[in-house]
Amino acid sequence: MPSIDVCFSPELLPLYNLTGKIAVAVDVLRATSSMVTALANGITHIAPVSELETCLAYREQNYLVAAERDGVKAEGFDLGNSPFHYLEEDRTGRMLAITTTNGTQAIRLSRAADEVLVGAFLNVGAVADYLRRAGKDVVVVCAGWKGLFNLEDTLFAGALAERLEGDFTLNHDATLAAYHLYQTAKADKLAFLSKSSHVQRLERLHILKDIEFCLQEDTYTVVPVLQGDFLVAAQ
Amino acid sequence: MPSIDVCFSPELLPLYNLTGKIAVAVDVLRATSSMVTALANGITHIAPVSELETCLAYREQNYLVAAERDGVKAEGFDLGNSPFHYLEEDRTGRMLAITTTNGTQAIRLSRAADEVLVGAFLNVGAVADYLRRAGKDVVVVCAGWKGLFNLEDTLFAGALAERLEGDFTLNHDATLAAYHLYQTAKADKLAFLSKSSHVQRLERLHILKDIEFCLQEDTYTVVPVLQGDFLVAAQ
Repeated sequence: MPSIDVCFSPELLPLYNLTGKIAVAVDVLRATSSMVTALANGITHIAPVSELETCLAYREQNYLVAAERDGVKAEGFDLGNSPFHYLEEDRTGRMLAITTTNGTQAIRLSRAADEVLVGAFLNVGAVADYLRRAGKDVVVVCAGWKGLFNLEDTLFAGALAERLEGDFTLNHDATLAAYHLYQTAKADKLAFLSKSSHVQRLERLHILKDIEFCLQEDTYTVVPVLQGDFLVAAQ
Repeated sequence: MPSIDVCFSPELLPLYNLTGKIAVAVDVLRATSSMVTALANGITHIAPVSELETCLAYREQNYLVAAERDGVKAEGFDLGNSPFHYLEEDRTGRMLAITTTNGTQAIRLSRAADEVLVGAFLNVGAVADYLRRAGKDVVVVCAGWKGLFNLEDTLFAGALAERLEGDFTLNHDATLAAYHLYQTAKADKLAFLSKSSHVQRLERLHILKDIEFCLQEDTYTVVPVLQGDFLVAAQ
């Protein structure tokens, strides 16, 4: 039976062997939630990039450019890191380049895996279905916050573990922790997270509406998968 | 109000600022449980060292020498990593040098803090009392397993957070995770841990008796504190 493991911080990823496995990169608040929303609403492909300058340069190729640093939209970009930016107007057929504090780094570091998917609560069921069909070992790569453990990405890992229970082994310590935390939190994830100083900081940025949106499960069925340098919807 | 934070792996410790804080190093299974037991049973001071050779050299100074690698006693040493080794015969007045896979490293890396304590379930209440009197910010430094997150050290962090609730803020994400996991586990920590492949590996080494001993709370009131290169009982 394949296993699901969880890496709580990109800083710990060198300790994981990703060969032969599928990595699921997650930054629930808000990078991967925005990416899932973008692909579900007409964006054809996404270039996740590390540097602001690299991202901005994509505009010359007619990309929408999106950037977040420390929770807010970076100067000079079309879009920030809110999923609502991809719902406000029709983006059908557009391409997107995006850089965020933590999320794009998690995707980049996951490239050693056989495949890299992007997960969020918004598409957790679809990601679980994809993984079940693939039948390979899975490592959830949590973006964390500047290298530190965070609760919301951990809860996503726990939700994914719950969906895979019975078909995957859950006996890695990090997976068990995520699974149990999700059991405690799932009846009201927002209330559970509201004691976190990290989430309180996001709330002070007036993105409570974003947080509520990002905590919804199974809104979309799209599974973003990395092909070369681009995230596209898995067929 | 001072805060309690938790570092789940020594690999993440460079992200924490320990200046002005008290570090509590923990390796519940079994290094710090054995150290607490040793100081509670007559050992006068403990040299936690990284290398097997350095540890063995202490024998010339009439130290007991203890070493564990990958869960078993290393060849040529007096003692391994079981707390029962410090209960079997009278060790009163003896000095101890010890090296373990994860625990001694956590202590060494914690030295940037104002003070370094050693914690275990066996002395969790005494550690909490010490921290409450000191009134400084606290970082629990989990030894983990070869750099990876582990459940048992996390549960200790959660138990300590519970003891400090009301006098310390618990709103770091890692602290909240540890606190909630301890709430889930505390009625039967052994049953909670028994699904862990890491703990199952320890059980295969026939140390179930050790594990049960190490999960007991408040057996001892000694608080090991690092003074120079040695752990001694706090006065």
